[in-house]
Amino acid sequence: MPLIQVHLDRDTFDHQHEKIGLAIHDAQIAALGIPADDRFQIFTPHDAGELKFDPGYNGVDRRNLIVIRVVAVHMYDVATKRRLFQAVVDRLQPLGIRAEDVLISLTENGFEDWYAGKL
Amino acid sequence: MPLIQVHLDRDTFDHQHEKIGLAIHDAQIAALGIPADDRFQIFTPHDAGELKFDPGYNGVDRRNLIVIRVVAVHMYDVATKRRLFQAVVDRLQPLGIRAEDVLISLTENGFEDWYAGKL
Amino acid sequence: MPLIQVHLDRDTFDHQHEKIGLAIHDAQIAALGIPADDRFQIFTPHDAGELKFDPGYNGVDRRNLIVIRVVAVHMYDVATKRRLFQAVVDRLQPLGIRAEDVLISLTENGFEDWYAGKL
Repeated sequence: MPLIQVHLDRDTFDHQHEKIGLAIHDAQIAALGIPADDRFQIFTPHDAGELKFDPGYNGVDRRNLIVIRVVAVHMYDVATKRRLFQAVVDRLQPLGIRAEDVLISLTENGFEDWYAGKL
Repeated sequence: MPLIQVHLDRDTFDHQHEKIGLAIHDAQIAALGIPADDRFQIFTPHDAGELKFDPGYNGVDRRNLIVIRVVAVHMYDVATKRRLFQAVVDRLQPLGIRAEDVLISLTENGFEDWYAGKL
Repeated sequence: MPLIQVHLDRDTFDHQHEKIGLAIHDAQIAALGIPADDRFQIFTPHDAGELKFDPGYNGVDRRNLIVIRVVAVHMYDVATKRRLFQAVVDRLQPLGIRAEDVLISLTENGFEDWYAGKL
């Protein structure tokens, strides 16, 4: 039951939200091994001024910003998390979304912290 | 000081946001025993395409999606969390919001991680 | 790589988002010692009814609500967090944002939970 929240500029959302959603979901299936129907994604398109970032932090040439927040049960090791991040950017790149423009932040909780349609 | 974030479609928001807000808050008071005035809720209405989900994950017949994110201090046991989730869906159902359409995700922090108007 | 999310009413956003963003970022640099270019801020302006709160919780006279969510690596002690909260409200006050109207909630993760433009 990872929950995905994607914050991106409205233009990118309007043109690509279906493909971006599928790309991130496919990355999760590949890297985390979640079931194909375990999909919960919240997209929030942002207008000018709402996404503020520095163009050079971490030594990358950042021109835009797409933030992907993940809430997942505490069960994945560091290597798995890195595989997830790499799988996400690998699948976004063919859509014209540069790896340098991606910020991913993952936070964890427990199995007992979820309700997905039934107890 | 639980912080509640509700992501739902704009139509449901427009017609029911007051009742939904009160229902979730009442569930918190009943299940967690928080003070009646400890209310912080952020609603985000979403337009078409922004909430992406699978209609059958976890063996339920999901037709819509309302996501309720909770940030709360680490102090509630598993039974209390389950009581909260049940209390929320019990109070949303009379508003026409099906239990199957609810996703709740809770994350925890510490007392020292909050500022609520004063130190 | 703290990630900052600011939820505020649309009017305050329209008039002050640049100054608010800089104020919060400057507070982070002063209190946490992060690099000046480590800036990732997501602003979400909210319309009427979307921010629900109690005007008196915690014994303060709350008239408006600005919610600042912080996701940061688990590395700051309690005193540092309090310095951050104080630095934020100290820098927002000259902009006409009352300390009583501020809610800050911080959640933590690990270094391995971030992707910022490269692995």
